[in-house]
Amino acid sequence: MQQADIGLIGLGVMGANLALNIAENGYRVAVFNRTVEKTHAFHQEAGALKDKIIPCETLEELAKNIRAPRPIILMVKAGDAVDEQIAALKPFLAKEDIIIDAGNANFHDTVRRLKELGANDPTFVGMGVSGGEEGARHGPSIMVGGTPESYARIEPVLTAISAKYEGESCAALLGPDGAGHFVKTIHNGIEYADMQMIAEIYGILRDGLGLSPAEIGKIFDKWNKGPLNSYLIEITAKVLAATDKETGKPAVEIIVDSAGQKGTGRWAAIEAQMLGIPATGIEAAVAARSISALGGERAKAAKAYASLGTPKLAGTDQSFIDALEQGLLAGKIAAYAQGFAVMAGASTEHGWNIPLDTTAKIWRAGCIIRSQFLDEIASAFTGGSQDNLLLAPSFVERMKTASTALRDVVAKAALAGLPTPALAAALSYFDGYRQARGTANLIQAQRDFFGAHGFKRVDKEGDFHGPWSDVS
Amino acid sequence: MQQADIGLIGLGVMGANLALNIAENGYRVAVFNRTVEKTHAFHQEAGALKDKIIPCETLEELAKNIRAPRPIILMVKAGDAVDEQIAALKPFLAKEDIIIDAGNANFHDTVRRLKELGANDPTFVGMGVSGGEEGARHGPSIMVGGTPESYARIEPVLTAISAKYEGESCAALLGPDGAGHFVKTIHNGIEYADMQMIAEIYGILRDGLGLSPAEIGKIFDKWNKGPLNSYLIEITAKVLAATDKETGKPAVEIIVDSAGQKGTGRWAAIEAQMLGIPATGIEAAVAARSISALGGERAKAAKAYASLGTPKLAGTDQSFIDALEQGLLAGKIAAYAQGFAVMAGASTEHGWNIPLDTTAKIWRAGCIIRSQFLDEIASAFTGGSQDNLLLAPSFVERMKTASTALRDVVAKAALAGLPTPALAAALSYFDGYRQARGTANLIQAQRDFFGAHGFKRVDKEGDFHGPWSDVS
Repeated sequence: MQQADIGLIGLGVMGANLALNIAENGYRVAVFNRTVEKTHAFHQEAGALKDKIIPCETLEELAKNIRAPRPIILMVKAGDAVDEQIAALKPFLAKEDIIIDAGNANFHDTVRRLKELGANDPTFVGMGVSGGEEGARHGPSIMVGGTPESYARIEPVLTAISAKYEGESCAALLGPDGAGHFVKTIHNGIEYADMQMIAEIYGILRDGLGLSPAEIGKIFDKWNKGPLNSYLIEITAKVLAATDKETGKPAVEIIVDSAGQKGTGRWAAIEAQMLGIPATGIEAAVAARSISALGGERAKAAKAYASLGTPKLAGTDQSFIDALEQGLLAGKIAAYAQGFAVMAGASTEHGWNIPLDTTAKIWRAGCIIRSQFLDEIASAFTGGSQDNLLLAPSFVERMKTASTALRDVVAKAALAGLPTPALAAALSYFDGYRQARGTANLIQAQRDFFGAHGFKRVDKEGDFHGPWSDVS
Repeated sequence: MQQADIGLIGLGVMGANLALNIAENGYRVAVFNRTVEKTHAFHQEAGALKDKIIPCETLEELAKNIRAPRPIILMVKAGDAVDEQIAALKPFLAKEDIIIDAGNANFHDTVRRLKELGANDPTFVGMGVSGGEEGARHGPSIMVGGTPESYARIEPVLTAISAKYEGESCAALLGPDGAGHFVKTIHNGIEYADMQMIAEIYGILRDGLGLSPAEIGKIFDKWNKGPLNSYLIEITAKVLAATDKETGKPAVEIIVDSAGQKGTGRWAAIEAQMLGIPATGIEAAVAARSISALGGERAKAAKAYASLGTPKLAGTDQSFIDALEQGLLAGKIAAYAQGFAVMAGASTEHGWNIPLDTTAKIWRAGCIIRSQFLDEIASAFTGGSQDNLLLAPSFVERMKTASTALRDVVAKAALAGLPTPALAAALSYFDGYRQARGTANLIQAQRDFFGAHGFKRVDKEGDFHGPWSDVS
């Protein structure tokens, strides 16, 4: 039997779908799963793709069945399982071979794993894959961290299996070692912010305007034809239109209002903190999920504050619905600006040289935050710009209009008692960022007063202390 | 010469002041500094306190001059210097002796250092000290993490040197190992949020109402006599009243609007993220300092968005100034609620059993965030309550009034283009926390749609998936 072009370990839903995707694109794939039965069952059920799949019962067999240098994708549970798999695999591989971790790894682990491999061990690639099960099967967005040599070996397969945006592949090498997994982490952080802002707008429409899920779904459906056009807006319209079969009620109304989190949103927030780069949209989104999990406390608080009344927006009409659309767009621009700023900062910090335009390009299709909007972002970063998105001329024009709507939305929601943590964070970020003279001079005065931290003067160089003794 | 009650290593400003404080309170202190000259100079300049101070030229001499079991305070640079000092000191100490790190350590390091000490090594205490140079000299707030046995040995000295609030000492054992340094980290995080909210109100008064520093200072001075009464409000009034000697201008106006950060604010945000507990007030404050450091970018952005005009609040009068006072109070309550919730969460996570009431009590004097407000917080946590502050009856009543003012402030600032990241985060936290039915049901629907994450139903137990295929 002809050797495989690539190997894959871990035939869970994601791994199995990725293997089928590879096979369907004409590449031979050797597969291995810890339980042998699963490997054979997968092979048997592959139908027309069966001939492109080589089921292997041992890691040794897997290695033998792949054309050297051997690229092997790991699609196992993130964490210790990856380390164990690397250790188990190493004895059968040569130094030219490539182990590819396609799980949701923390990039620090990716950097460590690469370091731990010796000079005669195979090399290691950290690969972020977004798009869920569907994406894995029919075209995900693929964010790769590794050497150009490793990437050259796997590029044909990745290009073939990835999503396409107007014919362009959504797979790319974004930098060395942890760059791919880092970008995936920030992708997920932005996804959190995006979803949270949509949920806030949903809350305003539901609680402020008293609209039904079906009515709200129609609004999102309409927005999906405008500048907000994106996968997340599309599916928001769909889930809002869905009916629960058992009760006949709108599906969203029978779902508990408590959202889980898988860790990548939190990692994004932590990395932004480590870099000292604001990611308040992501932070607000993670916090909102944490609050959502406090159902019991929220019920108590609702009772304690019942006398404050129920939120209701007064005097709203179609122009306010339009403001919600523009406000959501403004919030989204600010949140993406933060996410890309974090990537630019990490790129500098770790010497990754992440191309922001390419990153935006490979997010245009396949991944959860896919949208036309990302095409505009890619254009803004063309030519290697690492400037904040809020400074890109096309977004300046957008924000000039959209920020006014965002102001209106945040102000009305604040007055009505409707929480808009991510939208308000976006507005504050925008207003803080465009403030030539901020208010941190007061903070510096306070710090110098109580801790003799010193400050800079606006009128000359040097470090100074205040004349506080005269007043204290 | 009679043996010392305690030892101290590191005669920088903080260490020297702490040693003088100890001596002044009648305890004998043996001191050591890496440069012998500094040790002798310190001793020579101690005046009337000279007899209580034993200058030591070597660590061996230091150990010999302290009454066993020997407590030795390290006041050296946080980080590697602490590890080096422990290693250098160990050979001269017995297992009953106590090394006390009084620096701004990351609590993870404190936990590690304790673990690294063997069964026959001295024990280790992590001690947070707040109050700056003045506090160290005349009475700081002291947050201790260690064993009850260690604490019993050092309690008399710590009680004597600590700040007093109406006669009660602001020193306490808050839990084992890292508890003291953790509480200090959260203290600093709250300090960040407190200062940021004050700066936001200052910005509204300066840019929205066009008031001069002197006028704003008078407002803060007045507020210092009301529910906002606190050290930070007091010094805000003072720095706003101060005049730069060189130019004759208000001092705050000659200070560059770029604030530094020492790391503890960031640590507080990261630990909150690790615990999955919202600390959006602290996060907003850290982010605001990061934005403040981007002076060049802000100047560019101000130019790019110049056509949006200058912020100006319309139709404001004394009632709006009153709303600012109440709004700041509401923001402060929410930010403190977050900080204490993070401590409660960490206490559970690490098995520390941090007494929140005692924590609030020892913050009432000595530290930077000291205030009467903390006495109210201590009362709310009396009896070992770990409930969110927003559920404490006394704060429920306060928030019912104050939240209305906060709404007004956030809404007006949003419309005017004045950034209020921490105040807006506080309001969103409050409104999200008291929402019996949130909007995370939509997020769960989205996640189930694209990732088959599943969700809980409101009407029965179990894990379910949506009817999305009908609509997609």
